[in-house]
Amino acid sequence: MASDQPFGAAPAGAAGPLDEGWAAGPLDAGLLSPVRAGTAAEALTGDAAWARALLDAEAALARAQARAGIVPPGAANAITTAARLARPDVADLARRARGAGNPVVPLVADLRDLAGDAGRHVHRGATSQDIMDTAAMLVAARARREIVGTLDRVLLLLAGLAERYRDTPMAGRTLSRQALPTTFGLKAAQWLLGCLDGRDRLASVALPVQLGGAVGTLAAYGADGPDVADVFAAELGLDRAVLPWHTRRAPVAELGTALALVTGALGKIATDVTLLAQSEVDEVAEPAGPGRGGSSAMPHKRNPALATLVRSAALQVPAQVQVLLAAQAAAHERPAGEWHAEWQPLRECLRLAGGAAETAAELLDGLEVRPDRMRAHLDDLLGLLGGHDAGADIRAAGALVDRALVRYRKNSP
Amino acid sequence: MASDQPFGAAPAGAAGPLDEGWAAGPLDAGLLSPVRAGTAAEALTGDAAWARALLDAEAALARAQARAGIVPPGAANAITTAARLARPDVADLARRARGAGNPVVPLVADLRDLAGDAGRHVHRGATSQDIMDTAAMLVAARARREIVGTLDRVLLLLAGLAERYRDTPMAGRTLSRQALPTTFGLKAAQWLLGCLDGRDRLASVALPVQLGGAVGTLAAYGADGPDVADVFAAELGLDRAVLPWHTRRAPVAELGTALALVTGALGKIATDVTLLAQSEVDEVAEPAGPGRGGSSAMPHKRNPALATLVRSAALQVPAQVQVLLAAQAAAHERPAGEWHAEWQPLRECLRLAGGAAETAAELLDGLEVRPDRMRAHLDDLLGLLGGHDAGADIRAAGALVDRALVRYRKNSP
Amino acid sequence: MASDQPFGAAPAGAAGPLDEGWAAGPLDAGLLSPVRAGTAAEALTGDAAWARALLDAEAALARAQARAGIVPPGAANAITTAARLARPDVADLARRARGAGNPVVPLVADLRDLAGDAGRHVHRGATSQDIMDTAAMLVAARARREIVGTLDRVLLLLAGLAERYRDTPMAGRTLSRQALPTTFGLKAAQWLLGCLDGRDRLASVALPVQLGGAVGTLAAYGADGPDVADVFAAELGLDRAVLPWHTRRAPVAELGTALALVTGALGKIATDVTLLAQSEVDEVAEPAGPGRGGSSAMPHKRNPALATLVRSAALQVPAQVQVLLAAQAAAHERPAGEWHAEWQPLRECLRLAGGAAETAAELLDGLEVRPDRMRAHLDDLLGLLGGHDAGADIRAAGALVDRALVRYRKNSP
Amino acid sequence: MASDQPFGAAPAGAAGPLDEGWAAGPLDAGLLSPVRAGTAAEALTGDAAWARALLDAEAALARAQARAGIVPPGAANAITTAARLARPDVADLARRARGAGNPVVPLVADLRDLAGDAGRHVHRGATSQDIMDTAAMLVAARARREIVGTLDRVLLLLAGLAERYRDTPMAGRTLSRQALPTTFGLKAAQWLLGCLDGRDRLASVALPVQLGGAVGTLAAYGADGPDVADVFAAELGLDRAVLPWHTRRAPVAELGTALALVTGALGKIATDVTLLAQSEVDEVAEPAGPGRGGSSAMPHKRNPALATLVRSAALQVPAQVQVLLAAQAAAHERPAGEWHAEWQPLRECLRLAGGAAETAAELLDGLEVRPDRMRAHLDDLLGLLGGHDAGADIRAAGALVDRALVRYRKNSP
Repeated sequence: MASDQPFGAAPAGAAGPLDEGWAAGPLDAGLLSPVRAGTAAEALTGDAAWARALLDAEAALARAQARAGIVPPGAANAITTAARLARPDVADLARRARGAGNPVVPLVADLRDLAGDAGRHVHRGATSQDIMDTAAMLVAARARREIVGTLDRVLLLLAGLAERYRDTPMAGRTLSRQALPTTFGLKAAQWLLGCLDGRDRLASVALPVQLGGAVGTLAAYGADGPDVADVFAAELGLDRAVLPWHTRRAPVAELGTALALVTGALGKIATDVTLLAQSEVDEVAEPAGPGRGGSSAMPHKRNPALATLVRSAALQVPAQVQVLLAAQAAAHERPAGEWHAEWQPLRECLRLAGGAAETAAELLDGLEVRPDRMRAHLDDLLGLLGGHDAGADIRAAGALVDRALVRYRKNSP
Repeated sequence: MASDQPFGAAPAGAAGPLDEGWAAGPLDAGLLSPVRAGTAAEALTGDAAWARALLDAEAALARAQARAGIVPPGAANAITTAARLARPDVADLARRARGAGNPVVPLVADLRDLAGDAGRHVHRGATSQDIMDTAAMLVAARARREIVGTLDRVLLLLAGLAERYRDTPMAGRTLSRQALPTTFGLKAAQWLLGCLDGRDRLASVALPVQLGGAVGTLAAYGADGPDVADVFAAELGLDRAVLPWHTRRAPVAELGTALALVTGALGKIATDVTLLAQSEVDEVAEPAGPGRGGSSAMPHKRNPALATLVRSAALQVPAQVQVLLAAQAAAHERPAGEWHAEWQPLRECLRLAGGAAETAAELLDGLEVRPDRMRAHLDDLLGLLGGHDAGADIRAAGALVDRALVRYRKNSP
Repeated sequence: MASDQPFGAAPAGAAGPLDEGWAAGPLDAGLLSPVRAGTAAEALTGDAAWARALLDAEAALARAQARAGIVPPGAANAITTAARLARPDVADLARRARGAGNPVVPLVADLRDLAGDAGRHVHRGATSQDIMDTAAMLVAARARREIVGTLDRVLLLLAGLAERYRDTPMAGRTLSRQALPTTFGLKAAQWLLGCLDGRDRLASVALPVQLGGAVGTLAAYGADGPDVADVFAAELGLDRAVLPWHTRRAPVAELGTALALVTGALGKIATDVTLLAQSEVDEVAEPAGPGRGGSSAMPHKRNPALATLVRSAALQVPAQVQVLLAAQAAAHERPAGEWHAEWQPLRECLRLAGGAAETAAELLDGLEVRPDRMRAHLDDLLGLLGGHDAGADIRAAGALVDRALVRYRKNSP
Repeated sequence: MASDQPFGAAPAGAAGPLDEGWAAGPLDAGLLSPVRAGTAAEALTGDAAWARALLDAEAALARAQARAGIVPPGAANAITTAARLARPDVADLARRARGAGNPVVPLVADLRDLAGDAGRHVHRGATSQDIMDTAAMLVAARARREIVGTLDRVLLLLAGLAERYRDTPMAGRTLSRQALPTTFGLKAAQWLLGCLDGRDRLASVALPVQLGGAVGTLAAYGADGPDVADVFAAELGLDRAVLPWHTRRAPVAELGTALALVTGALGKIATDVTLLAQSEVDEVAEPAGPGRGGSSAMPHKRNPALATLVRSAALQVPAQVQVLLAAQAAAHERPAGEWHAEWQPLRECLRLAGGAAETAAELLDGLEVRPDRMRAHLDDLLGLLGGHDAGADIRAAGALVDRALVRYRKNSP
């Protein structure tokens, strides 16, 4: 979206706050969330991606019904084609969503128009939430593939650090004070295990299809209901659901918490990096490069900017998960608000986790590690300890690094 | 942004998940947050609005310095003109923000280019956070004007309900059971007081300018520092700051909590409306109209869709405020993450509160109140109570309504 | 603790706020959290239980070291005996905990005194966090056994409801309005699946032992470190840890989220019960009995008091989990605050989940279900729908009930 | 509660987890929350203090009604005496609270027994929530007096630091890196302003009495309702309420956020202290003394234990406030859960804020400041900056210190 000129053309006489048009631009292109600006996870979770998933869900539903003989095959094909070709105006959809409380109602109306004669077979037997939840799982599945891939890259980099610095001694620090010797390899091994646990947890979260109809009985499909739901899942590559889960929200809550574990593990790395990168410690530095870590006021400074961004994500995700966990108290067959409150926080979890993973990969890829600085601080500590032999610490730490690497290799693809 | 056709033109052969281009559309046009889709608060807090505020802040800073004789008046004018005419590509800014961790660094670079010879006077003595925080307060001030205006409309509607239904009896309900008689007027009077408190709190929150320079000493301006800061505030119509508040975050925390009080008061109304609108209660109904309250599966149903949207906001804001409150633990002169974590949650607070207010106004404007249904339920209750005289309750409730109205009229403009 | 007299003896002349002694009583006996007052989970997570677990951990550590030949067997026995007999004054421990920031330091000092000559072998090679984290997992393990047992009782009751009311029709409700027919059996089946998922998740959470020494290298045990840690785990019946997890907090975060899933599933039931118990709906009622559901102002009222308590827990736990998730950003080898912030929120998660489970069991055990009221509301709805045949809905719902019961039976012990 | 022996008497043969009695001790004496263990705020917010406030509220209500001629003066006196002499068994009350969902119902029953003939005048026209909310405000008022007093001490200490170190140069640090010169005096002045804002906010929060009767109409008192409520407020030294606020929860939400601002300001200090106390920075140290800052594993270490405790509070309070903000969505005239969910989080806010204040006072009272270490780091930075004159920075910082002190002196009593 960048143009050659840093700023686009400006109409003559445009005036700051008085200019009626000034705020008509993008509502959120990442300006307030650089940790995910321009990342794959951001694009995969944007409104356009969500609209795409809604359309894909409607199309898959038609095909699943066609297999059950409920919808004519030709109609399912027509709906699928219409859905694929559709390029909805999401801002318009969003505004029309206010009527019914969700964007599926206007989307279905538009898709029916587009599908011509087949239009009356669109969304048969389904309720808005079937499509919205299924789309959310589809968006999550697509984003997860990307995030897990990025995490695999992070794991590889971390395993590399753990191996390379297996025997590099440094001061272990507790409650902010130097305590006893450890190694940078063990620190990296801990980071590795944390990300590995997060990755495995995220990879194993079930992302089930949603299909229940108005009140979750699947009654519109007669005895075929469960089968239609299962074929629907297969069409989209999502997991089956034992029952519709309109107001049994564990799938969303579990997804959110898995993303919080991922962001938490990345945030731990970032916290350590910001501390190790302090001027007075200076044991690591972020990768250098043009436009990186700069300060608008102090050209001499090299900031841990990537770690800062990762931390900004880790500080936000737990609160978003709070909303998802609280939304479990959803009334009756579908609630008046709890469900609607999930959407944006779930997106934030996905794109903050994805952005944090990508940013962490960038950070780790060029991380400068300074064994000499580590050694110097350790010598200070050993002086204080008087006669402590760091050899035993290094050997013990090395054994733990090996345990972590064995575990990593067992789990990695 | 809506076109006549419900869906835009589609390239031939475009395919769902395989289509590389499908996710290139808007990242957030409100699809997942209909409560604020298309509202004024949404536009006033979008990336474009934020970019505008950043530019306005840089321009005002130049003018403030010109008054102090630090920057030539002509340069301040040139910077102001350049800032006014600028139409930055926010997506590009967002991506470039990853280098330094915030969007001010690339914005300043671009503005310097645009301002020609005056460029070297852009951002003098300031740090990124000065501009970013000031812009946040500016965005908040602009959004607040809108939100408070909307709340004034909500208050007027609520005062109308309180007056009109001052003596309309209904069953008071506690722990979900009918308890003793009250009036709908008292219920509306309580809603009124809640919103009044929220409005007054929001209106009274200080929105201070931020200016401190690299480490918050204002040293770059010599002895003029505090004066430059005060003129900077005056230029933008913001409050003065006793000291720079880079890592003294009460202003942001206070703003967030005021918005949570507003959303909480609106959420209380919405909660009551969803309960009173239940089929079995049916004592109020949301305004009817084309495309309103519809269900994708059940044409016969009229849902409290607006109340649902208001509730969706009220369920999210407290978690966003948690992030703002936690961000107070910011290290040293500027932190590595806590500050960056504030931006998006603060925006969510602003646009969710504003969207909830606008949605509540729409809801209250056409709220159908059904005194006959209220009376019928009350009669059931009185039957159970045996010989309870509701007259005393109605009189007592009426006196409280009057108290609330007196208070409202004293506070209203 | 109750005496025959409702109030204990009072000193003559004692005066409200002026009485210096009036606040010297219990700090927390459940007065502000009746959902867990007097429950097993409350007792199992109290300070005394935690102190017991700390002592058990120290004793087990000594025995594990004895097996590795690091500590003389006699000393391990003496330490074990001393730990078993110890009855620490927890209020005193708590105050002394302020010196080092945690209660292990003073506890170790006391235990060393108690163990006589063996005292010098207490806590060898360990750090406070080893003992505190291990005790937390031990407390969690003991509370979990209780909670899972209670959940199994809840599941049995829910399965009974699902079976018994498999074909009992009622109105399904969405966005607070009657929508289409469903059955009470399906509602109960959904509650069942929710609790089943929560129970299974909680049961499968790993509760690892913690042993790492000062900076997590296990260096004090030489090459035996990992073995000592594994024997330590076996002694306590806890899970092994691949590495020490002083600042890799997934175990605590995972435990918290599992408890939030449990409380969320129970909260969903409670939300439905409060709504179904409304005067105007009246389709279920909580078990009656002396002192139950009473109101201090309205003797005629029967409140859903148990559901109210369960909801009070479900509304608190997500926020406590937020603290646990955020605590993952723990600095270096042990942090200055994040770890300390976990303790009380973790306890709240455990005892609120346990209290909610016990309260839900009480609620479900005597739940009055009123098929006639359900039928009457359904008839209203069918009248509105005109000619809708509820038979298909009931059959479809029944099939889903069966699916849920099959799943339950497969998972239940 | 401490005895001379570190551990109390132990029954023969007591065995760890098998011992049925081991968990019968105190549920919460502060073991998991040392930041407030033994502090005044802890005692003032304990169950005993809450029970005292409940009794005081009932007595004051009787007196207020006596003044209005509703209750005979003799009865009001008898109730007051009975309430003053009462020493309720809070654990028993807590368990009996499960019947009605709150402890007022059993407390009223007991107080009626104790008051003899006057007993039938206890709790006239009131509902449980009137007493519970009023007691909460009373507890808050008593704790606030203590907390504000402690904060005044903190402010005095901070003003002393700001003055004493007004011209003591040090490196300002941003994003964890040394940036430009500042002074320790300015850092202390920022801490001062933060605490001052928090203190003023807390001191100005309204703590209103609650009186509304069953459904908030005050009907039981006829036309005297508002007067009875106002006299009730005067009797207790609480603020008047325009209307009952059973489900208009701004008072609780405002109180919680004020406490979060206090804890946030204290947490900022603690965060800086932990960073300045790092081995590699070592520019400040916590007060030394027996049993302070010790480590169970490393006798050579002096930890910032007090700062750690303050941080542990600051990390918990925002989540508790989230619960309070969310509880605003309370249904109808009194909700089934939202209100009950407030109690424990509100207590946590009060005692964590109070504990943090007391701990911060202890920390600041003996804080070792090391100008030589500050100077050494600054020299490193100046070397890097090459030719930067720190004099201008120090002068600018000094001017800001003076502004802060002027502001402080204007506000301080």
